[in-house]
Amino acid sequence: MPNPTAAMLVIGDEILSGRTRDANMHHLAGALTEHGIDLREVRIVSDDADAITAAVRALSDTHDHVFTSGGIGPTHDDITADCIAAAFGASIDVRDDARRLLAAHYERQGAELNQARLRMARIPEGAALIDNPVSVAPGFSLGNVPVMAGVPAVFRAMVASVLPTLTGGAPLISRSLRILRGEGDIAGPLGDLARRFDDLSFGSYPFQKDGIYGANVVIRGPDAGRVELALAELTRAFAP
Amino acid sequence: MPNPTAAMLVIGDEILSGRTRDANMHHLAGALTEHGIDLREVRIVSDDADAITAAVRALSDTHDHVFTSGGIGPTHDDITADCIAAAFGASIDVRDDARRLLAAHYERQGAELNQARLRMARIPEGAALIDNPVSVAPGFSLGNVPVMAGVPAVFRAMVASVLPTLTGGAPLISRSLRILRGEGDIAGPLGDLARRFDDLSFGSYPFQKDGIYGANVVIRGPDAGRVELALAELTRAFAP
Repeated sequence: MPNPTAAMLVIGDEILSGRTRDANMHHLAGALTEHGIDLREVRIVSDDADAITAAVRALSDTHDHVFTSGGIGPTHDDITADCIAAAFGASIDVRDDARRLLAAHYERQGAELNQARLRMARIPEGAALIDNPVSVAPGFSLGNVPVMAGVPAVFRAMVASVLPTLTGGAPLISRSLRILRGEGDIAGPLGDLARRFDDLSFGSYPFQKDGIYGANVVIRGPDAGRVELALAELTRAFAP
Repeated sequence: MPNPTAAMLVIGDEILSGRTRDANMHHLAGALTEHGIDLREVRIVSDDADAITAAVRALSDTHDHVFTSGGIGPTHDDITADCIAAAFGASIDVRDDARRLLAAHYERQGAELNQARLRMARIPEGAALIDNPVSVAPGFSLGNVPVMAGVPAVFRAMVASVLPTLTGGAPLISRSLRILRGEGDIAGPLGDLARRFDDLSFGSYPFQKDGIYGANVVIRGPDAGRVELALAELTRAFAP
């Protein structure tokens, strides 16, 4: 059985403007690979309701899971929850279970649960809350879309809350070989190998450093024995 | 007149698997912001012909420019050029101008221009070559899509070749204030300010470090005077 598929939707003007560099995508990609879920596509869109809603609809129709990051805080530009509700035609309002979590948290902190903070208790009807052990305000899963915070520490905690609840497949085995030859010298034999081992995937990732051309060739597949066999042939073909 | 819009398409299994962390997106985002082109969306797809072709079509229909990164080397998994040609219904073959560049380069290096390397001279009909001062094999622009290499040093060189040929708009002025208060305390006054200065955009990017909650509030707009005015009000509202 093929592995479940996933997409990720990153919501945030700050990444598109070049102000900050996304860290959540790289974290989720690694966590999904370990869990046996194939991340097929990532989209990054701005804090724009139409763009978010359209992307959620398109990605949730074509993938088993869609993970979102960003836009669920208390400020005016946090519109993700409303967009997810709209994408699924669900109603949204402050929900008692989320409000209780926040009320207890801010009482412990001696801070006021004001109107702005109460926005973080707006949860679409039918969604399941995602635990946030870092800063309490919950994420939620609606349909096949887990909705998580953009702050990296919170995002990671929510991923750790959600992933064990999702059925994974066989983790891909991955082995790589660093070859200090130009890709143009590698390409012919590598293409032959890829055709012979058509149950595996072969990626070639070129680099150049201090005037030396080379490539990291990565072999991936579900069967460790086959991956090792292909790696041995690759190594023999490009032995120094 | 509003600024031109752009999307970016990153092609690469290695990013979706979590093996490598993309660097090109962050570089392009900053360069476009400086040049007055609004980056509205980024998509990352795998080395899959249907996924690449569909994404190019969708993005090039809805943005002024679509910048692609990755998949134009000599190996079997380098399929971007063929996908771009397919997306525009253009034919593609080894083109004499690109072949001459490669032939001269490999002759200088004393290396063979073999079949694999010749793949890098496959350029769609009607495309303009993009200069590659790092490793010679050119990128190309077809329609509104500049197609560039994924290796970061080469990507950056190609961006530097292409950007001056594109008409930019007014660069956005951006000022930010670091506020050591929880976003829930900031949200109300910030929302009021955003409504009063509706010609500017206000982003709030929360952080927490060593148990301290805070947010970087970023104000952006084309008019420096208005941005400064809003920043002064924001500063006054949250003066320690």
